[in-house]
Amino acid sequence: MANSKYAYVRSFELPDSIMPSTFMIVRLDGHAFHRFSADHGFEKPNDERALRLMDAAAKQVMKAYPEVAMAFGESDEYSFLLRKTCNLYNRRSSKIASTFASLFAATYTFSWAEFFPETPLQYPPSFDGRVVAYPSSKEIIDYFAWRQADTHINNLYNTTFWALVLQGNMSTSEAHNALKGTISSQKQEILFSRFQINYNTLPDRFRKGSVLYRQEEITGIGAQVIDDIVQADEIQKKQGTSRSRKVVVVEHCDIIGRSFWEDHASILGEAAD
Amino acid sequence: MANSKYAYVRSFELPDSIMPSTFMIVRLDGHAFHRFSADHGFEKPNDERALRLMDAAAKQVMKAYPEVAMAFGESDEYSFLLRKTCNLYNRRSSKIASTFASLFAATYTFSWAEFFPETPLQYPPSFDGRVVAYPSSKEIIDYFAWRQADTHINNLYNTTFWALVLQGNMSTSEAHNALKGTISSQKQEILFSRFQINYNTLPDRFRKGSVLYRQEEITGIGAQVIDDIVQADEIQKKQGTSRSRKVVVVEHCDIIGRSFWEDHASILGEAAD
Amino acid sequence: MANSKYAYVRSFELPDSIMPSTFMIVRLDGHAFHRFSADHGFEKPNDERALRLMDAAAKQVMKAYPEVAMAFGESDEYSFLLRKTCNLYNRRSSKIASTFASLFAATYTFSWAEFFPETPLQYPPSFDGRVVAYPSSKEIIDYFAWRQADTHINNLYNTTFWALVLQGNMSTSEAHNALKGTISSQKQEILFSRFQINYNTLPDRFRKGSVLYRQEEITGIGAQVIDDIVQADEIQKKQGTSRSRKVVVVEHCDIIGRSFWEDHASILGEAAD
Amino acid sequence: MANSKYAYVRSFELPDSIMPSTFMIVRLDGHAFHRFSADHGFEKPNDERALRLMDAAAKQVMKAYPEVAMAFGESDEYSFLLRKTCNLYNRRSSKIASTFASLFAATYTFSWAEFFPETPLQYPPSFDGRVVAYPSSKEIIDYFAWRQADTHINNLYNTTFWALVLQGNMSTSEAHNALKGTISSQKQEILFSRFQINYNTLPDRFRKGSVLYRQEEITGIGAQVIDDIVQADEIQKKQGTSRSRKVVVVEHCDIIGRSFWEDHASILGEAAD
Repeated sequence: MANSKYAYVRSFELPDSIMPSTFMIVRLDGHAFHRFSADHGFEKPNDERALRLMDAAAKQVMKAYPEVAMAFGESDEYSFLLRKTCNLYNRRSSKIASTFASLFAATYTFSWAEFFPETPLQYPPSFDGRVVAYPSSKEIIDYFAWRQADTHINNLYNTTFWALVLQGNMSTSEAHNALKGTISSQKQEILFSRFQINYNTLPDRFRKGSVLYRQEEITGIGAQVIDDIVQADEIQKKQGTSRSRKVVVVEHCDIIGRSFWEDHASILGEAAD
Repeated sequence: MANSKYAYVRSFELPDSIMPSTFMIVRLDGHAFHRFSADHGFEKPNDERALRLMDAAAKQVMKAYPEVAMAFGESDEYSFLLRKTCNLYNRRSSKIASTFASLFAATYTFSWAEFFPETPLQYPPSFDGRVVAYPSSKEIIDYFAWRQADTHINNLYNTTFWALVLQGNMSTSEAHNALKGTISSQKQEILFSRFQINYNTLPDRFRKGSVLYRQEEITGIGAQVIDDIVQADEIQKKQGTSRSRKVVVVEHCDIIGRSFWEDHASILGEAAD
Repeated sequence: MANSKYAYVRSFELPDSIMPSTFMIVRLDGHAFHRFSADHGFEKPNDERALRLMDAAAKQVMKAYPEVAMAFGESDEYSFLLRKTCNLYNRRSSKIASTFASLFAATYTFSWAEFFPETPLQYPPSFDGRVVAYPSSKEIIDYFAWRQADTHINNLYNTTFWALVLQGNMSTSEAHNALKGTISSQKQEILFSRFQINYNTLPDRFRKGSVLYRQEEITGIGAQVIDDIVQADEIQKKQGTSRSRKVVVVEHCDIIGRSFWEDHASILGEAAD
Repeated sequence: MANSKYAYVRSFELPDSIMPSTFMIVRLDGHAFHRFSADHGFEKPNDERALRLMDAAAKQVMKAYPEVAMAFGESDEYSFLLRKTCNLYNRRSSKIASTFASLFAATYTFSWAEFFPETPLQYPPSFDGRVVAYPSSKEIIDYFAWRQADTHINNLYNTTFWALVLQGNMSTSEAHNALKGTISSQKQEILFSRFQINYNTLPDRFRKGSVLYRQEEITGIGAQVIDDIVQADEIQKKQGTSRSRKVVVVEHCDIIGRSFWEDHASILGEAAD
């Protein structure tokens, strides 16, 4: 081949595979989303359209990659869980991080108009990605608790901050100063006494983020919101004639307590799913 | 903080920085583009609209990242060169690979309608990314020669293959068989004798791919195609009152020979640019 | 400082820490020991002096590094287990591998004359080292089973091979051919029918390798061989006035079955020590 | 094979190869040598026997590994240079670091009695090792300048410190305080005015460390000290009937200035050697 004398440059591609038999979390973060959200007039403290668009992009990733057992999103970030047995792209770190970030950003762009019909997308957004491996389910549960606790902290701060600015007529720097050093209960008290906002009755979506996981489809699904159906081909194949289908459900539930994990044991388990 | 007891999970994020003072190449590859191009009716053997869309996405990456000194694209792949002194994202491999792949895929989606006005985008595309480091300019020159030689080989094969199929009425498997074991000169002979195609007069874009680099803007730029102007803010700042501006030029020129590198010494050099 | 202008070279030292909360195995292998054993007249198929010297070097490593929970040795190799919580040298891979290999080789040299009083050491031996991380105890148990199964396979082969050569007057190539394709039972049959050797009554040391672990010192230790006493300072400190002491015991017992691990649960556990 | 069901544990051995075409430095450091030197009564500020023993161990490494182009040692550390083209152990980092540290420590132990005939070795020493890669000769020259500048700084400090203690009857803490904040010229002044020691006339070995490299053997080598002859087999083989031999020379010369590197261009070059 004409290019064989140059092919030695491939030898500089060093392997970056993740240790086998460990959980992998792929975390994506919006790049320069402070500016992006300002340029596109996102509502404060939370823009539900933007959050729903994030969820849609995450679902697209879960459709494309049946290996993803669960995802959690808040603000401009999303985390995807790959199980211990997952051998996607031979567990190559850069390959996984880049394809997930790439598909997520492309879907965000692709689906923009559906969620922001009145607001033209001015320029394409981007997300960075990283893969972090964890040896046991304990760390996975703690990882997601870490992200959801972060959601609580940020949302309470932002809700109070923007109430002071938008309803309390403070400047942003006055609002920053007013909140400096306050603890959670004090912020909740400000919200309640000055703005008649009971923090705990605000939408779960804002306070708890979005939890995506797969579930057998059941008729009469009740209170549960099923936004979309994901047909996992390889699962059907294994189950032969079974009519069951997996769907991706989006919830805004607590995942810090144990009950979520007990109720959905197959997320961490090897057996089911 | 409420999340401090979980923050230990951050300690599992292992560093992946690239060695300092080495060149870095970020290579992006279309994910499942065989299917994507079929689903969107790409012309064979080359779809100029698709190639121009790739170039547009690459230029967006060069706009966003002034650290990129040069890029080369062919088919559904693109390679970006970062200089030895580049300290983008502290040279973290996954971060660089994922943001580049992400911005590229989002731009591809964002700009689709401009290049395919008649063809709706059916679903978002994705690209994988990897960062490969090289210690010296010799390997960089050979790297790009490797990619351009690959362009030649693939394009000659595809041009002949599709001539046999589209003009010669062969089935695809007949065409494959007809080309099995042929060398370049034989393929060129088939093209010329059977289809009156002189391979060497086919568009440079198809035979040589796209070469993007930055250049001082000059009036009366002649034969050179300037598709777009990129204002590199940090460069202007350094140059004080200078009026010079850098633009990204797109060419379809030979980069296997030495003359390209001699004529554009600043691409590899530390001094200029 | 006069050397500050050069200190940038330290930035090229890239981190190589092992993922937290995983077991680590440090495996050492003799470098060019085929030649070394020939040069020093090791007995075939096993030289008990050499194996005892290996054990002594391993015990020195366990003395120096209380973090080592267990070790297994056969032939010219040794594996050391570090628990999940171990933070030795911040889990830096090269640092751990090199200090273990270094101390082992130095001890082998230092203690040579004790085990080979009649044979001068002609030149210093060396060992290579590597660190491999494992996420769970299952893989650790399988790792040691892998090494002990290897011991069985090699020892049965070598025992039969050298019986054919030394007692059966075959050349080494005749012996190789005679054993080609034989399975374990056939080798045992050769040993028994031709040389009246019942393989299963050969010394455990040869058939099972050496297993080192720590144990509370108990009076009247019975059949157990305690070659040496290791005072783990930091354990004593924690235990305050307690008189208990940890000793390193050397056994040649089965570790493929579950009973070893059940009887010594603290090796893999976090609680006891 | 009986062990095949366990062999999967090998898949956890992740690759750690160093980027091709880069220089590699293997640096070894004595482990706990403060205590080791006290336990063995090393003379202060420098023990020539100990330094010669270090040199002997380094020469053994250069004998065993013809890939080593140069070495530099001071105090209880040694650095070995491997050229860009070196493919030793497929450039596996842990393997190189551990074998070098292992052979060095074993040789130190093996040769102890030759340099310390009156002082029994009480216990085996150990060294840690690391491999650091550098893309160009500039960094290599700066690396060795960094180490030799460190030698100067440490030796001037130690020489002055121990003069104050041993001749000036200060306690060690008094000496520390007396030197706190002093610059080089002040330390030299203390040495000269109080102890009549002209620092610049002290032995080169103490002030400049040890520089080892290979050289064609020449008759009447003059002032140069050749401690030992190293026969590099594979070099002889290539050179066919040539009678030339490479020897390892030990010098205590300046390597911060350019002249050393100009006079011995083959150390960094690809051509010669």
